[in-house]
Amino acid sequence: MDFFVGDTVFEKGMHVRRSVLGEEHVNKANAKINEFNGDFQNFISHYAWGEIWTRPGLSKHNRSLITIAMLIALNRGAELKMHIKAAFNNGVSKDEIKEVIMQSALYCGLPAANEAIQTAEEVFRELGKN
Amino acid sequence: MDFFVGDTVFEKGMHVRRSVLGEEHVNKANAKINEFNGDFQNFISHYAWGEIWTRPGLSKHNRSLITIAMLIALNRGAELKMHIKAAFNNGVSKDEIKEVIMQSALYCGLPAANEAIQTAEEVFRELGKN
Amino acid sequence: MDFFVGDTVFEKGMHVRRSVLGEEHVNKANAKINEFNGDFQNFISHYAWGEIWTRPGLSKHNRSLITIAMLIALNRGAELKMHIKAAFNNGVSKDEIKEVIMQSALYCGLPAANEAIQTAEEVFRELGKN
Amino acid sequence: MDFFVGDTVFEKGMHVRRSVLGEEHVNKANAKINEFNGDFQNFISHYAWGEIWTRPGLSKHNRSLITIAMLIALNRGAELKMHIKAAFNNGVSKDEIKEVIMQSALYCGLPAANEAIQTAEEVFRELGKN
Amino acid sequence: MDFFVGDTVFEKGMHVRRSVLGEEHVNKANAKINEFNGDFQNFISHYAWGEIWTRPGLSKHNRSLITIAMLIALNRGAELKMHIKAAFNNGVSKDEIKEVIMQSALYCGLPAANEAIQTAEEVFRELGKN
Amino acid sequence: MDFFVGDTVFEKGMHVRRSVLGEEHVNKANAKINEFNGDFQNFISHYAWGEIWTRPGLSKHNRSLITIAMLIALNRGAELKMHIKAAFNNGVSKDEIKEVIMQSALYCGLPAANEAIQTAEEVFRELGKN
Repeated sequence: MDFFVGDTVFEKGMHVRRSVLGEEHVNKANAKINEFNGDFQNFISHYAWGEIWTRPGLSKHNRSLITIAMLIALNRGAELKMHIKAAFNNGVSKDEIKEVIMQSALYCGLPAANEAIQTAEEVFRELGKN
Repeated sequence: MDFFVGDTVFEKGMHVRRSVLGEEHVNKANAKINEFNGDFQNFISHYAWGEIWTRPGLSKHNRSLITIAMLIALNRGAELKMHIKAAFNNGVSKDEIKEVIMQSALYCGLPAANEAIQTAEEVFRELGKN
Repeated sequence: MDFFVGDTVFEKGMHVRRSVLGEEHVNKANAKINEFNGDFQNFISHYAWGEIWTRPGLSKHNRSLITIAMLIALNRGAELKMHIKAAFNNGVSKDEIKEVIMQSALYCGLPAANEAIQTAEEVFRELGKN
Repeated sequence: MDFFVGDTVFEKGMHVRRSVLGEEHVNKANAKINEFNGDFQNFISHYAWGEIWTRPGLSKHNRSLITIAMLIALNRGAELKMHIKAAFNNGVSKDEIKEVIMQSALYCGLPAANEAIQTAEEVFRELGKN
Repeated sequence: MDFFVGDTVFEKGMHVRRSVLGEEHVNKANAKINEFNGDFQNFISHYAWGEIWTRPGLSKHNRSLITIAMLIALNRGAELKMHIKAAFNNGVSKDEIKEVIMQSALYCGLPAANEAIQTAEEVFRELGKN
Repeated sequence: MDFFVGDTVFEKGMHVRRSVLGEEHVNKANAKINEFNGDFQNFISHYAWGEIWTRPGLSKHNRSLITIAMLIALNRGAELKMHIKAAFNNGVSKDEIKEVIMQSALYCGLPAANEAIQTAEEVFRELGKN
């Protein structure tokens, strides 16, 4: 997948990815790139970050809210943790995260909401926001 | 579940439910209430609509966006259709619905997004918004 | 999969399957057996019905309750319909079905419970139990 | 969400919650209540424990069985562990838990059942019931 | 998303998409392109078909098998139907489809496999392959 | 479930299970057999390994590919890890595993694929294949 080299969508994607997930996260991910995972890393920089997260139709703030909502529903705890962290970079408040979880209690069920509460509290502790 | 009678939370809930889902939808649901489904209908009016949808921490507009996001992820087509319709009553635009679906392509997968596109287009046709 | 011929587990399985799903349902399924689906039909008669549904550790009544609970959670509407029908053959009451659905509202979320309410009401109409 | 204070549904809910999950569990949960999770804790005491677990139409024993069934299907391991523990407080036997898991092998698939077996064995070790 | 215009990946994608899903299917999809769904249609032509389905590391035959396997697990019936049809264009046989479904009975559960059997039989009837 | 003793399906099943999962894995599982999990262990030796994995219609190589595909979709990480390991015993290459994951990014979503990448890399490290 070397078609990405010098490519604007990739550059835009890496820029958004760094601003949303944070420099440190992306640097760590880059340091782990190898022959096995490299194509996937390039793919998401284009496909997710370059194409979709850059679209003007929805603010990054609201993209964070709906991404958190989807990850709670999908039962993907590790990715949820990453996107709760990222949400702060997009201006989402602790209170808004709480409301997404309260709403998820209704639609995704209580176990989903309960796990999300705990994941969010882990993030707050790691970020010193508890 | 007659504890709801004369209950302020229930009254608030019915009010919000009517404003979000529309008079017609709620009247239809009420006309179908019977011994089997009545407790469930009261339960959601009180808890979903009275307790959660009325919370001030997130706008109804944003509650619509995250509800749509969760329903795409959960693969619940009939409820998704209802909440895409309802979203218009909460000031969500067609473009925002499109962006939620584009974002869902990344996190929920392409089949989920593809079904959501078709569900949304059905709603637009029914509402004369296509 | 002709290892089933003359096989006691298979015979027991067909017996339980007929008593739970009803003669008519099983006869219809048998009439549709062909080269493509035959192995699957034999497989479930032997293993699902012959091995598991015949186990003494849980009554058929309670196996019906937990099967309905799992099918609501799994979002498998057609199979749910079949097992709500079957539950009556295992002595489950309408009220118990209602309670499984109320409980599912908590754990599986409201859209799951709402669909189950509607599926159950369809069954009641078909069986003249509404 | 201070509407709960002095409220019968809340009192009933806390009573059932303590009898099902155990004093120790509920005391621990209460000790962790903070501004972020407090509304959720209050919500489930009402919504889940006060309204649904107290309903007379299904025994607590059978509510435990169907809750376990749903949690296996939903792939929610931590909540499953909690409800396998709780099931003993509702008079469920090890053999019944085994049968719910055997039945789940059919409907939820072998990986779901396999994880449930391991979760149950963890609980048995913790409770000295292995 | 006009970055696709004159884009080689997009061209390759459309070519593969036509060869896998069939001219008729793609022409129908193209005829329905509008302002709402156009970006999504372009997105999948570029990324799904242009980037992934064209990768040399796995034959189109095997990509069909794993796609069918994933769609059974994901409970996405409409997309499953489309990919069972498409599988014939990739040289998959009825017998292989049967084996994927038998295998899915183990991992995804019997209701998933049962629905897949019925979806496959619908496809066979539509293609005159029953 | 002692109906299995001296039974050909069981013998065939144990043989395939050992060749696919490895002697060590099966010996460990056998050493943990007890009154609680024994029926389940016997059940899968018959149902999964004896009946399905032995069927001639699909190579073990391709059964590994579709099993991995289903486990990614089903979000069952522990079982996925076991089947990525097993895949090497069935002649699957690292490159093919990578391609299944790339394909899953499209259909199951990026979080599913991302977790699968990490699970696969864990396996490679454990097997000295990184």
